[in-house]
This record gives sequence, C-alpha cells and structure tokens, in this order.
Amino acid sequence: MKITVIRKGHFNAAHRLYNKSWDMAKNDAIFGKCNNPNLHGHNYEVEVHVTGEIDAETGFVIDLKILKELIRTEVHDRFDHKNLNVDCVEFEDLNPTAENIVLVIFNILREKLDSKFQLKIRLYETEKNFVEIAE
Amino acid sequence: MKITVIRKGHFNAAHRLYNKSWDMAKNDAIFGKCNNPNLHGHNYEVEVHVTGEIDAETGFVIDLKILKELIRTEVHDRFDHKNLNVDCVEFEDLNPTAENIVLVIFNILREKLDSKFQLKIRLYETEKNFVEIAE
Amino acid sequence: MKITVIRKGHFNAAHRLYNKSWDMAKNDAIFGKCNNPNLHGHNYEVEVHVTGEIDAETGFVIDLKILKELIRTEVHDRFDHKNLNVDCVEFEDLNPTAENIVLVIFNILREKLDSKFQLKIRLYETEKNFVEIAE
Amino acid sequence: MKITVIRKGHFNAAHRLYNKSWDMAKNDAIFGKCNNPNLHGHNYEVEVHVTGEIDAETGFVIDLKILKELIRTEVHDRFDHKNLNVDCVEFEDLNPTAENIVLVIFNILREKLDSKFQLKIRLYETEKNFVEIAE
Amino acid sequence: MKITVIRKGHFNAAHRLYNKSWDMAKNDAIFGKCNNPNLHGHNYEVEVHVTGEIDAETGFVIDLKILKELIRTEVHDRFDHKNLNVDCVEFEDLNPTAENIVLVIFNILREKLDSKFQLKIRLYETEKNFVEIAE
Amino acid sequence: MKITVIRKGHFNAAHRLYNKSWDMAKNDAIFGKCNNPNLHGHNYEVEVHVTGEIDAETGFVIDLKILKELIRTEVHDRFDHKNLNVDCVEFEDLNPTAENIVLVIFNILREKLDSKFQLKIRLYETEKNFVEIAE
Repeated sequence: MKITVIRKGHFNAAHRLYNKSWDMAKNDAIFGKCNNPNLHGHNYEVEVHVTGEIDAETGFVIDLKILKELIRTEVHDRFDHKNLNVDCVEFEDLNPTAENIVLVIFNILREKLDSKFQLKIRLYETEKNFVEIAE
Repeated sequence: MKITVIRKGHFNAAHRLYNKSWDMAKNDAIFGKCNNPNLHGHNYEVEVHVTGEIDAETGFVIDLKILKELIRTEVHDRFDHKNLNVDCVEFEDLNPTAENIVLVIFNILREKLDSKFQLKIRLYETEKNFVEIAE
Repeated sequence: MKITVIRKGHFNAAHRLYNKSWDMAKNDAIFGKCNNPNLHGHNYEVEVHVTGEIDAETGFVIDLKILKELIRTEVHDRFDHKNLNVDCVEFEDLNPTAENIVLVIFNILREKLDSKFQLKIRLYETEKNFVEIAE
Repeated sequence: MKITVIRKGHFNAAHRLYNKSWDMAKNDAIFGKCNNPNLHGHNYEVEVHVTGEIDAETGFVIDLKILKELIRTEVHDRFDHKNLNVDCVEFEDLNPTAENIVLVIFNILREKLDSKFQLKIRLYETEKNFVEIAE
Repeated sequence: MKITVIRKGHFNAAHRLYNKSWDMAKNDAIFGKCNNPNLHGHNYEVEVHVTGEIDAETGFVIDLKILKELIRTEVHDRFDHKNLNVDCVEFEDLNPTAENIVLVIFNILREKLDSKFQLKIRLYETEKNFVEIAE
Repeated sequence: MKITVIRKGHFNAAHRLYNKSWDMAKNDAIFGKCNNPNLHGHNYEVEVHVTGEIDAETGFVIDLKILKELIRTEVHDRFDHKNLNVDCVEFEDLNPTAENIVLVIFNILREKLDSKFQLKIRLYETEKNFVEIAE
C-alpha cells in the first residue's frame, strides 16, 4: 500500500499583488489592498506531501532528514525574509498569489524529488486562506 | 494543473438530534445526550475547497473576495447564532447531524458556484469530530 | 517556588443572552443576535490553573487524576450538551455570558479545592473570545 | 453522495528506531538520534476517516459513539503510555516508524470496520511530521 | 472579583528592522535577515485583555461589540496590508520590532479605553515569537 | 514600561514516573500507567518568557537570536530524543513530572540569563496538560 509522508516548513515574506500590464485603477479594482505598492506580508506555512511505498529495511517512505533538508534549502532559504516581488527571480514575471507560489514550490520540489514519489503541496497564506496542488 | 483554493468560515449554532418518527426512548438510545430537547450547541468551522485552473491575468483560481462573500452570506449569515432545528428551513425535515449540515452547505454552494469549479466542503463540529463531502 | 498546573476540559452547550427585566427591544439593542430566543451554542474550552508547591515525594503540585476527575464531574458533566438557560440551576437568575460562566465555574471549583491552592480559570467561548478569572 | 466522518484520538508512547539486522554504526547512520537505545517519545494524534453513505433514519454515516469506542479500545488502550518496541506485539519485528505505525493502525481498524466503509488514517508524530494511508 | 475579557484580532503587514543612525554593516550584524531593505512580512495576531468588574445588568465586563469595533478600527484598519516602516506614521522614527509594535498598540488602545479598565496586550509575530505588555 | 518577549521551543522525550523509595504497588497506585517500567513519551513544548525594558537603539528587550540559541543548546539539545530518567543527570534523583521538568529548565535558564531579566517558563506535556513557573 502507498503511504504519504507530510513535513511542514515555513517562511515569512512580503509581497504585492498586481498585473504589470494593467493601470493602477484596474489593479486596485482587482487586488484591492493587496496592491499596496509599499507591500504587506505573511507567515507562510508549507506542507509537503510525498507518497510512495514503505522501504522494508528502514520502515521509511522517504528519509525525513532528506525531506527536511530539501524544504530548508529549496523553500525556507529561498523565500524566508524576502520580498517575493523584488528578491525572487521566480516571481519576476509572475504575480505572487498563493496559487502561483504553491505552483512555483511544486515545480521546484518536483524536479528535486525522485520520480517514483507522488507530490502534493499545501500552502497556508493565513490560517483561513490556503491552497493545494497535487499531481 | 488544477489548484485548490481553501477558505475558512464559521458559525455558532444550537441543535438537537432526533428523529420525529421515533419515540423518546428510541431517540435517547440512538442520539444519547445529543437528543436533549432543550438543545446544546457548537462553534462550527467550515472549509470551502474550490478547485480550478489559475487565471493567467490575475493569478487567481477564484477571487477570494467573491469566495469570502459567498461564505459570509450563504453560510455565516444563514446559520450563525441560530437554532438549526427551529430557525433554519433547511433542517425542518432533516436531522442536523454534521453529515446532513455539510451536505446542505455543499448543495447551497454548489448552486452558487460556476460549474467549472470542483467543490469540496469540510465541516468541524468540534476539534475532534469533523466531516467532509467532495464531488 | 510556586508552580502552576493547568488542565484543559470542555463542554458543548446552548445559551441565550438576555435580561429578564428588560423588554425585547432593549434586549435586542444590547445583546443583538445573542438574544435569539431559539438559542445558539458554543464549544466551550476551560483551562483550570492550580498553583501550589511541589510535593517532594510525588513531584506533583496536585495529582492530575484528581484534577481531571474534578473537571469531568464539576464542569463537563454539569454543562455538556446542556441548555445553560434552561437546564442549569446556576443560570436561573444569571445571564450566561462568558464572564458569568467563568465566575460560576470558579466558585464551584474553589469550594472543591483545598484552600492551600490558588485558582485561576480561563474559559474560551470561541477561539477569538475568552475570559479569565484569578484570585 | 459519499460523506467522510473523521474522529480524532491520541496516545503517548515511547519508541526507538532501529533495524535488528544492522550493527549500531549503520543504525546510527540511518536513524540518528531516533536510535537512542534508551528511547524517546511522542504524543501521537490519530485521525480516522470513514467514508460511506448517510443513513436516512439517523443522519449518520457511522454512529460516532461506535467510532469513538473503536478508537479508544483498538488504538488508545493498545498504545497509550506504552513502549512501542517492547510492550506492543505489533512492533516485535517491525520498526515503529510513523509509516509502520499508521499501517498497523489501518490494518487493525480495517478488520473491525464494516467493509461497506472506506478507510483512511492520518497519524501525527509531531505537529510538523505526519503520515497518511488510504485505500 | 475582577474578570478579564480577551478578544483576538489580526493584521498582515510588511516591515524591515534597522536603526537609521547605524550603517548597513552594523544593521546587518544586529538585525540579520530582518534588515532586508526589500522587506519581509508577517501575519500578526493581537490579543487585547481588558480587566474590570462584571456589570450586574448585562453580565458583561465590556460589551464585546465595542471591543471588537475598537480592534477593527484602531488595529486592523490601521496596520493591515501595510508596510509598517513606510505607511504608518507610528513607526516613522521607531523600529517596528514586535516589542515596539505592541507598545504602540498598547498606547493607542489605552487612550481609547475607559480608565476603569486594566489593559494588557499580547502580540504574536509568529506562532513561536510573541510579546506582551501589561500595566 | 516592562515588556515580555516569549519564544517557543520543543523536545521529544521518554520518561517514567516513580519514586525509588516506594515499592511497585505504591508506585502503581500513585502514578498509574505513567509508571510503566518500559516508559512512554511526549512531545514537550516550552515557552520561555523574558521580561525587561526595551533597548532604545535596537527596539529589542532581548535579541531573539540569543534567546533562540539559549533554548536550542540548554533545552532542545539537552533533552531532545532522550530518556529523561536514564540519559539526563538532572533527573537522576528527581521524578520527571512536568512540575519537576519545568523547575529544572527554569533553574538552568535563570543561571544563563542576565539578572536584569525576569523569567517565566511554561511547559506543555500535552495540549491538555501544562505547567508554569514564574519568579
């Protein structure tokens, strides 16, 4: 049977939502206070769900030390205490909505993870707003 | 790829579990203290999961302002500070178990939501008891 | 040194806020939707804080089994799945606001607890509204 | 429509991760501080997800009293305040990783539960590490 | 007896920690990645604790509607989706550390609140870092 | 005004409650299943509350990097993945109840912390049982 291992990480970041090709009025109409040019921020929490078979020798689906390290280097160190719009090349031409952030994280981790594993990511922007992507 | 956006809402309500066509003894046997004719109550929390494609212009699957407003009018204002059995037409002939409440909420929101979206609802009756419905 | 031991309990109850000596209009003005005559309800969480000295033989301030049993009989069994206004003699002439409920619980437990202990009670009506009483 | 009922339980247990057929050096390399021969421990939380149809008479998918009792006898009483490696026959020849514990719990509950229900188990080892198994 | 009523609010904001009178090297040494000139952000949660006597007629220490409104206008609307360093006059000459933010909020609310009440504020910057101020 | 800075840490440990000078029967009577000679375990969470004045230059009461490091070395590294009874000299002659553990942590940190700060420690053994010590 397949089992899913889930590990949580986090990062604190600033962002601003807007579409470069729209004027300020349209951006305000669509993104409201999320379009504050001076930015606002969040404590993001990320859950990485890795599904696979249990290894008979270790009893692990994936070694948690490896998964923890992957989240630390590829998510935390990349995005923590950053301005997503300015500091992060991933969002140079991509609006850093929760949906786009979770997609970026999914693509980064999918490339690093053995293809035998199935991947799902959940990202909390606040306790009340969160997003999920699964293959 | 499909992405799911989740938004949380809540309502505080009173209810009583019983089957009108059974006598008190049978109701007590099946529903125990949940059949207290004087009612008891809960802080219900509801998670609305909406799955769809990311819009390239906004970076949204669904505008959170719209989803938030939908939960406010169709769930919070409808059920908050209500006696589900007496104040809510939805439970006139339906026992307000967590299962039936989540089904009612699903049907209400399904009708209001564009059919291009896939819908799932999770409802917490307490931190330890919760239910889920998905299409 | 003094140490405080805290134990959590809970109860799910229905209530209605109103002042018998006021008319409906004044009750509505003051208590709003909390004055719904058909009631609403909450999952109440209660924290009992007991402060005293560590017993050298057991390493306990108070035996948690005793504290747990006290909360079960004096709080949970008394108020769980009850209509506070109708089922509970404690609120016959007392408006069951969070403030009055925490005061009632304090007085009940204070009488049952050895006077060598100092007592504090915290009561959550919702995650966002809570009250505290301490001697 | 199918609805899922979820009920939470817990148990506090000690464990040690190691493979009997490996020497201490290899065990240390793979399991690190989790291989402390003197053990360490966790507060495990378990979510049991039962999916089925709503019974028209009760409004229940499964009577929560039955599910609660099942979790109490088959999970809590079996594993609470135990040393999983020494006290529990289930882990005599099985490394008590979170993955193996959730598999053991799944197999125990699957056998006790009517085959008309679909079963999923989520097990939290810590707030940040958890596992899931679903059929 | 005195009773404390606690109400929670929140705001999402961006900030940067630095001392204007220091050079970049010293700011980096003291504030580390919190001195990112492009900012980072947090979901701040604020608990307002108001202590007073229960009013015999209402059963309230303070009407929660009033406290809720106060938090909405004086905390949420003032700081939510803002860049504390740039958008908020309160931090023009004050480093927006959690300590200074909680002090600012305390002073704002202290002025608005009847002097018969005692005030305490707790502010969460993250789940793991929080501050408290009490008179 | 004095401000309190709170930082959370954690450790996962095994323990057994018993009094060496009592026989097994008396230990069982007092400590129940917590006296399992094969041990059980917990995820302990610790909150360190440090009270002092805000430094005008940094805006800090205490540099969080220092507090974080103190908790890592003096609490986490000392107790994490340990058997408190066997691996930790602090509990050689002291029953590792929550009360005694919080006292030990208080004494360790009190010695490391500048005397200008006031110290309080809260320790969670489970979500429902916790203890507190304050000077």
